[in-house]
Amino acid sequence: MSLSGKGLLISIEGPDGAGKTTQARMLWEKFHSLGMEALVTREPGGTPIGEEVRKILLNPRFQEMTVPCEVFLYCAARVQLVKQVIQPSLEKGIVVISDRFIDSSIVYQGYAGGENLEMIRKLNLWATDALLPDQTFLLDLQLEKGLQRLQRKPAAEGCLGKDRIEQKNLDFHCRVRDGFLQLARREPERFVLIDAAKSPEEVHLSIWTEVKNMLRKRQFFR
Amino acid sequence: MSLSGKGLLISIEGPDGAGKTTQARMLWEKFHSLGMEALVTREPGGTPIGEEVRKILLNPRFQEMTVPCEVFLYCAARVQLVKQVIQPSLEKGIVVISDRFIDSSIVYQGYAGGENLEMIRKLNLWATDALLPDQTFLLDLQLEKGLQRLQRKPAAEGCLGKDRIEQKNLDFHCRVRDGFLQLARREPERFVLIDAAKSPEEVHLSIWTEVKNMLRKRQFFR
Repeated sequence: MSLSGKGLLISIEGPDGAGKTTQARMLWEKFHSLGMEALVTREPGGTPIGEEVRKILLNPRFQEMTVPCEVFLYCAARVQLVKQVIQPSLEKGIVVISDRFIDSSIVYQGYAGGENLEMIRKLNLWATDALLPDQTFLLDLQLEKGLQRLQRKPAAEGCLGKDRIEQKNLDFHCRVRDGFLQLARREPERFVLIDAAKSPEEVHLSIWTEVKNMLRKRQFFR
Repeated sequence: MSLSGKGLLISIEGPDGAGKTTQARMLWEKFHSLGMEALVTREPGGTPIGEEVRKILLNPRFQEMTVPCEVFLYCAARVQLVKQVIQPSLEKGIVVISDRFIDSSIVYQGYAGGENLEMIRKLNLWATDALLPDQTFLLDLQLEKGLQRLQRKPAAEGCLGKDRIEQKNLDFHCRVRDGFLQLARREPERFVLIDAAKSPEEVHLSIWTEVKNMLRKRQFFR
């Protein structure tokens, strides 16, 4: 499964409001406290080109954006992030924690957006030289809980309300959750399902327990 | 070949400096003078989203852009243009003149950029529901002539010199010309090769003669 070289690629996935950014930061802090070099990247974005693409993708003015256009823009940001940041870091043995990765494209544009799942997967694997995370933590959350959290979230960058993706309807968010759960069932070795309704500290503990096991297996810990 | 519905999709292709934009305008004026509704679109761009993508693609600061990232950005702009402008216009019976289309992606990122030609073609056909131009005019020009013309061209929008694509080296531009000629040989029914070294008026006359034949065949002229 892993094509990530000497380092380790961990992705954190899940719907909006599940706490991915908090968990990515807490995991980074844990690595840092142990003296291990780690890096958090975010999608879309994480490079100067990717951040420009992010502005287009999340701009609430662009309601007319088609799903294939979204697929391509996410792929453009991702391939740049992989080549410019993730692959060079993995080659140096650094742990990369990615706040969303390929699975988000398959779920948001495929399961929820209605585009061909296999085509989205194929595009992404072509673009990233088939790089997949060593481990993916799926922060699963009941729909009501996620939306409650979103309502308390500050406005998206550069706009007054929610970003373009967050504005989608309830049915869309329902298909997002369902899509992530289907992916997790398809690849049980890569995915770890985490109950994101718990406190951030409890969620972090669950993630760290799994990461520790993986590090032991791979003899990161001597 | 044609999947363009009631209207007509004409693309004008060729290397930088071949005179595509001038010819697209002259062709539009000809249709207009005959009372036929026509529209010129440009790639990348042509929609609010596409124009934002164009700024990223041509920004000379982004020298680190990978070829797959370029492929995806061109596709993103193109699919938006097709769905938002080209397809609705064709359905109304309007003639659409596209300043570059899918062939430019295959040539610039495939033949010249080294990426897989079939993958680029597949991505594009998926994105555009397999829409291909009814006729493609390839403005062919010897390398020296094209570069001479480019040196006289005003600076790219928003920057002081040539845009990121125009800055590529001689070998790249050579592969561009060769790639276009190979595509034209592969699809002799769709492509019409035009000697772009002639004066704009002569080039226009060659194009218009072909277009007139096509219009007669399709009984656009009664």
